[in-house]
Amino acid sequence: MSPVTPVAIVDPADPRLAPYAAMRERDLVGRQGRFIVEGEVTLRLMASARARFRTESVLLAPERWPGLADVLGRLGAPVYLAGKPVMSAVAGFPIHRGVLAVGLAGPAPEPAALVPQPPAPALVLGLAGLTNHDNVGACLRNAAAFGADAVLLDAASCDPLYRKAIRVSAGAALITPFARLPAGADWLAIARSLALEPLALSPSGRETLDAAPPPARALLLLGTEGPGLPAGLMARARTLRIPMASGFDSLNVATAGALALSRLAGAAGRLIPAPAAGPDPREDC
Amino acid sequence: MSPVTPVAIVDPADPRLAPYAAMRERDLVGRQGRFIVEGEVTLRLMASARARFRTESVLLAPERWPGLADVLGRLGAPVYLAGKPVMSAVAGFPIHRGVLAVGLAGPAPEPAALVPQPPAPALVLGLAGLTNHDNVGACLRNAAAFGADAVLLDAASCDPLYRKAIRVSAGAALITPFARLPAGADWLAIARSLALEPLALSPSGRETLDAAPPPARALLLLGTEGPGLPAGLMARARTLRIPMASGFDSLNVATAGALALSRLAGAAGRLIPAPAAGPDPREDC
Repeated sequence: MSPVTPVAIVDPADPRLAPYAAMRERDLVGRQGRFIVEGEVTLRLMASARARFRTESVLLAPERWPGLADVLGRLGAPVYLAGKPVMSAVAGFPIHRGVLAVGLAGPAPEPAALVPQPPAPALVLGLAGLTNHDNVGACLRNAAAFGADAVLLDAASCDPLYRKAIRVSAGAALITPFARLPAGADWLAIARSLALEPLALSPSGRETLDAAPPPARALLLLGTEGPGLPAGLMARARTLRIPMASGFDSLNVATAGALALSRLAGAAGRLIPAPAAGPDPREDC
Repeated sequence: MSPVTPVAIVDPADPRLAPYAAMRERDLVGRQGRFIVEGEVTLRLMASARARFRTESVLLAPERWPGLADVLGRLGAPVYLAGKPVMSAVAGFPIHRGVLAVGLAGPAPEPAALVPQPPAPALVLGLAGLTNHDNVGACLRNAAAFGADAVLLDAASCDPLYRKAIRVSAGAALITPFARLPAGADWLAIARSLALEPLALSPSGRETLDAAPPPARALLLLGTEGPGLPAGLMARARTLRIPMASGFDSLNVATAGALALSRLAGAAGRLIPAPAAGPDPREDC
């Protein structure tokens, strides 16, 4: 809560800006435990009580500093000020909003640490082979919107802390508990070990979403849009489908997941019926 | 249905390839009634009975020709063959799949021509101020998946025939009837003239989605994620909200629309409960 004294930096080569350098290229090779946060909404989530990650540093255009002073005091991280031309030179592309930060991923949690112990109810989202950053980010956003306890990702799925995934998640990747499974992990064994009932969502599911009475402890599994979930998994799990119109049974995987999460969370009493106060809090990702 | 004789082209400057030139730049300035189709799935939709647009020409990498001969006979358009390096040189970026076509938008339909006449039931999606191509494409995809009769877009919303919107729509933009409203059009007046009940979807909606008995003729209105729907519209229309978890009431606009379309279409008996046959037909956009 202590006031933060920002440090002005004018040299794009200043070593304190190194974690912000060449953002696009470094997205491709990984960041050794660091991730990039963009924009005011996500920075405020990093400073909220629900944030799961520490902030290593903040980089602001000077004109953004006064409006963010309250947030910065809570982050406990050094704040660097640099004009947008310097920010853009460091990042390697134009920075319009003038708000960046570096977060620290920290030690990876175990799945069991994130899932409520039985007999408590639980709603967990499982992502199998989702290699598209937009889809992973959107799934995290939907998990937060419908109050899932956690998201589990297999080794093939991409990192929710990738820059674009955080952005598409509207910051949900920073507050929704998630954990990765080791390569080759078996979803059904995971579900058993966590006392969750696996529900595999697929256009070829055997039960319709609305007809199925949802279990108190559910692991909702989403596969990639191309091949879908593995046939072995589909054969051994309870499978759900979303009723669609004839002739175009194609939904985006994150959208399909939102429909299923909405149904499961609603049946479990996890959603608040009251309208949101004030103006529409949604914003473009 | 007649067999098509493809024409080999080796010069990127060949005038027959002009509609394919500099795709990214031309996306920004408009294409004078033409649009670009990418990939086999969308090309097959252009050749289907549900396609709403004529194909002006097709440009294929030679190795794609044998697998598509059946489709090309139905399109009635000239087919050009060029290697991927020539295709990429023309397009201005790498063409990986080797399947492109140019469609003709044709005369713009009037909204009234697309909406079933009363007293027939109707489900129409209205997009107000959606300037993000991904969101417009995703809304078209969801409209097709849940069997909406038509999509109406205000003048501020972006073109569903923009290249990226078609791609994100999984081709739904080519088969779902849509029409644009003139600048300054009043959604409530439009709804009245079409005998549709306007339903404004918003986090501050006064009724929850599931509680509301859906009308037989609905115009579901979605606003942009930032400011949402105009206050004047919200005050005068029936307003719906999606129940969400406490603390993160943020959904992507197309995802929110999918939830509402699913509910409205389901209540109207528009969805088929039977599972899809064969493998998962979804694919990455």
